[in-house]
Amino acid sequence: MIIDNIVITGRIYKEIQTIFEGKKLEKNFRFLHEDDVTVDDLHWADAFASFKPSPVFELTNIKWVHSFGAGVDSFLHQRDWNNNVLLTRTICSFGQKIGEYCLSYILKDLQFHHEFESLQNQKEWRQIAPKPLHEQTVIIYGTGMIGQEVAKLFDTLGMTVYGVSLSGKQKEFFKKVYPIASDVTPLKKANFVINTLPLTDFTNKIFNEKIFNALAAAIFINVGRGATVDENSLLKALDQRNLKHAILDVFSHEPLHKTNPLWNRKDVTITPHISAITSPEEAVQCFIDTLTTIENNNPLKNLVDSKKGF
Amino acid sequence: MIIDNIVITGRIYKEIQTIFEGKKLEKNFRFLHEDDVTVDDLHWADAFASFKPSPVFELTNIKWVHSFGAGVDSFLHQRDWNNNVLLTRTICSFGQKIGEYCLSYILKDLQFHHEFESLQNQKEWRQIAPKPLHEQTVIIYGTGMIGQEVAKLFDTLGMTVYGVSLSGKQKEFFKKVYPIASDVTPLKKANFVINTLPLTDFTNKIFNEKIFNALAAAIFINVGRGATVDENSLLKALDQRNLKHAILDVFSHEPLHKTNPLWNRKDVTITPHISAITSPEEAVQCFIDTLTTIENNNPLKNLVDSKKGF
Repeated sequence: MIIDNIVITGRIYKEIQTIFEGKKLEKNFRFLHEDDVTVDDLHWADAFASFKPSPVFELTNIKWVHSFGAGVDSFLHQRDWNNNVLLTRTICSFGQKIGEYCLSYILKDLQFHHEFESLQNQKEWRQIAPKPLHEQTVIIYGTGMIGQEVAKLFDTLGMTVYGVSLSGKQKEFFKKVYPIASDVTPLKKANFVINTLPLTDFTNKIFNEKIFNALAAAIFINVGRGATVDENSLLKALDQRNLKHAILDVFSHEPLHKTNPLWNRKDVTITPHISAITSPEEAVQCFIDTLTTIENNNPLKNLVDSKKGF
Repeated sequence: MIIDNIVITGRIYKEIQTIFEGKKLEKNFRFLHEDDVTVDDLHWADAFASFKPSPVFELTNIKWVHSFGAGVDSFLHQRDWNNNVLLTRTICSFGQKIGEYCLSYILKDLQFHHEFESLQNQKEWRQIAPKPLHEQTVIIYGTGMIGQEVAKLFDTLGMTVYGVSLSGKQKEFFKKVYPIASDVTPLKKANFVINTLPLTDFTNKIFNEKIFNALAAAIFINVGRGATVDENSLLKALDQRNLKHAILDVFSHEPLHKTNPLWNRKDVTITPHISAITSPEEAVQCFIDTLTTIENNNPLKNLVDSKKGF
């Protein structure tokens, strides 16, 4: 497949433009603000790259759509995807980034950062023994490229790592992978539950009372998609202490609205969707790698199955 | 060497007694409060085990002294050690514990925990991109069993790890080890400087203006001994921003006195000597392993060189 005309849009299109110009690719580019993308641009384009569809968006003659993020739900939601159009996504070092994000909050808990900060404020010298990683059990929802990379990190550090996936297929770095419909998932044993699932019709609000009620004072970390969580069930689980703490990087509606009760809770940590930020350099590099793979007709590692949604 | 009579003392001697009684060792024990140790007990004993010398302490007929902590400076300071007496120390999983302690504070910085906590308090959604571990450079002072275990952890995580030791002898997991007297230590490149050095005459106040002035907004983590740091130089380095932050788990005088200016500083984190707490189970296990090694005349990994002081 040959790609000549490329539309690039999205919030960092100007930074991306600067980097592309340094690469001197022999392609025709249109770098546009999202609101400036017209039907004419889309007719002209062989390829469209952005974080999400522009307000004016149709596939027309486009052969390839590339997402600068890992999630592609915004492209597929309520849209019949034309299976002749390739859809790819940015993965690059997301697994590593998300792993370090999760690890930082796991260690914050195990090392009692919050408690020692309070003790320092009171000038009080009182020992509490930190808990070692190797005594901890973590369950990772989603065993794809990101979930597996996170599992690898935790396995290396001696934690006990279980996985949960649609198929329940066994994967390296997980002690065991359970199918998502399984009732024997070891939720009660989990110190930490991490969500890396994509958003699909199936995963929408999949974290509901059934999962949360099975937990025993666990910490929940959401680095997948906000809409996979039923927010009322989450709040109830916190109130009932099935959840000790929730670390949330993604939300159904972003930015999180100022009136949302999550902001005020001491048992909720909010970060503004930063666990796997695509840097402009990475976005460009992943785009070029994907372009080269497509033009050489090689197999794509980051190709999305539009039926599955990831 | 055969050990029959053992004096056990120190702050957790009762918990240790319970564990020892479960082990049913065929030895004669005296489990004593520190203040109750008499010259008679010391005359009776073949072995003495504690965190530090009891108020009444002399070597008499003792053949083996075992420290329940990793540091043995309290045994050696201002005392001519009889080289016929074995001195051993507890190491067990200290390297791993100290590694996780350090990693937790490194990730706290790289993942901007403090900043996101402030933003949450203001209900403000503002993205800051976390910094990845693999772009960080760390210098570890001390390349012994603990320093090397910490280096292994950081090397596994992709950080660039330099070491500094008395000899400058190259060791695995360090990109390069520099002799402590070297002027070419890459201090300017360091994002993090970690002290794991023991306290000896040589290391006393070794962290002085010369080292601190060479840093460029680094974070200093002290998990070695408090007296290796010249506190005035540390405060000056913080004021001058050569040090961005200090994470201190050890102090010249513990507990840290309420009037000490370190307590109030926003750029200092104080923890009460918890980075490598010996649990009673570990203390007993390490003692028994050492006892078995001594009785079988096998080489001791945790033997202290009284001249070197570690």
